[in-house]
Amino acid sequence: MIIAEAGLETVPSRIFDHTSVKNYARKIGRKPKEVLLDTSYHFSAMTHHDLPLWWKRGRPDIVHFSLLTALSTPLFIERKLDVYVSTIENKLILISKDLRIPKSYFRFEGLMMNLFRDKVINDPNGSRKLLELKENINFKEIISQIVKPNKVIALSIKGIRSNPFQIIVDSVEDKNKNYCFVVGGFQRGHFQEDVKSIFDTMYSVSDYGLESHVVIARILYECEKLIQ
Amino acid sequence: MIIAEAGLETVPSRIFDHTSVKNYARKIGRKPKEVLLDTSYHFSAMTHHDLPLWWKRGRPDIVHFSLLTALSTPLFIERKLDVYVSTIENKLILISKDLRIPKSYFRFEGLMMNLFRDKVINDPNGSRKLLELKENINFKEIISQIVKPNKVIALSIKGIRSNPFQIIVDSVEDKNKNYCFVVGGFQRGHFQEDVKSIFDTMYSVSDYGLESHVVIARILYECEKLIQ
Repeated sequence: MIIAEAGLETVPSRIFDHTSVKNYARKIGRKPKEVLLDTSYHFSAMTHHDLPLWWKRGRPDIVHFSLLTALSTPLFIERKLDVYVSTIENKLILISKDLRIPKSYFRFEGLMMNLFRDKVINDPNGSRKLLELKENINFKEIISQIVKPNKVIALSIKGIRSNPFQIIVDSVEDKNKNYCFVVGGFQRGHFQEDVKSIFDTMYSVSDYGLESHVVIARILYECEKLIQ
Repeated sequence: MIIAEAGLETVPSRIFDHTSVKNYARKIGRKPKEVLLDTSYHFSAMTHHDLPLWWKRGRPDIVHFSLLTALSTPLFIERKLDVYVSTIENKLILISKDLRIPKSYFRFEGLMMNLFRDKVINDPNGSRKLLELKENINFKEIISQIVKPNKVIALSIKGIRSNPFQIIVDSVEDKNKNYCFVVGGFQRGHFQEDVKSIFDTMYSVSDYGLESHVVIARILYECEKLIQ
């Protein structure tokens, strides 16, 4: 599962000096450059400085729910699922199967700020990487160099209308192969063309524009049922 | 759907004076008595003062995810689902079908603090109640006086082992009747005896102790498929 074009990044340098960024950094006891971009706090700074693609950015909460949903499934618990976050800025977060994602947003935010600063989060005894941040790697490279799936299936309201059960039945032809499901980690808009060009198929699970976490929950549940 | 014995409450008076409560209140610009009890911030105060059932309390994040999961489903969007939160302190939160629950935890926290202070949240033009807090109403009264379902089906690892599909098939005998599904809104422990005594049946959906939001997502998805 890849959460793609995710709106997760630290505050861009051009808005470091904005009052909302400085105040929030002081409040949480961090440097402005460590703060996660968040529309809840920095919306006026984002629109005022006309950040490119601002409507897809500053949504760490979407990544948090999406990860919580995916990492709470029996599929993940049984180590049958790899989860990746590919950000809008071409960064990639590699997630260990041993990661227990914090349910508290406050703790998740701290973890992500540390990851963006240190590029790696080790477990407390330092023996294993729980999270790793790779930079300058685009979606195409993630698929060809890291995930290397047999098939890439994206979920989008612009895809072929189907349902989660049918999508899994139609996609998973061989249970010994690797299938990569891609869900957008952004609030508004659609996948970019360079990302879309890598998909083998694109399905829609509903007539509604559902939240990423709903789509993830349903797809992973149907996967589990099929491979049980 | 009822999220029962939920760990959502304001800080009890006996820990108002604890440093962690005062500091957090100052940080978010609220009075100590308005602050939500949260194990992420107040764990030492909770255990130091030996709050009764402390292991079930101070988890507003669990309520947040559970509500987000339920309120993001097509079932809720199509107004076929009522959602209630019944807290460990015998408070009941009534949720309007028009509520859009904030995805940002910061905004959710603010909304809940206002609800506990004002007992009601109206929509911006004041014409409708989006949230309402009722006090001193126990689980039995919620079922008999407010929800009045034809059947009460609880989900718990201590229930009869089944799966979400089978649970819905076995429970929903008549699509014109009202079925009430109950999921715990707490981190550790099990339903209390007075709550359990109201259930008609209790099922388990997995051999794992799954998070509330996972159980909610799967049960509501199977409900949707049945009534489609």
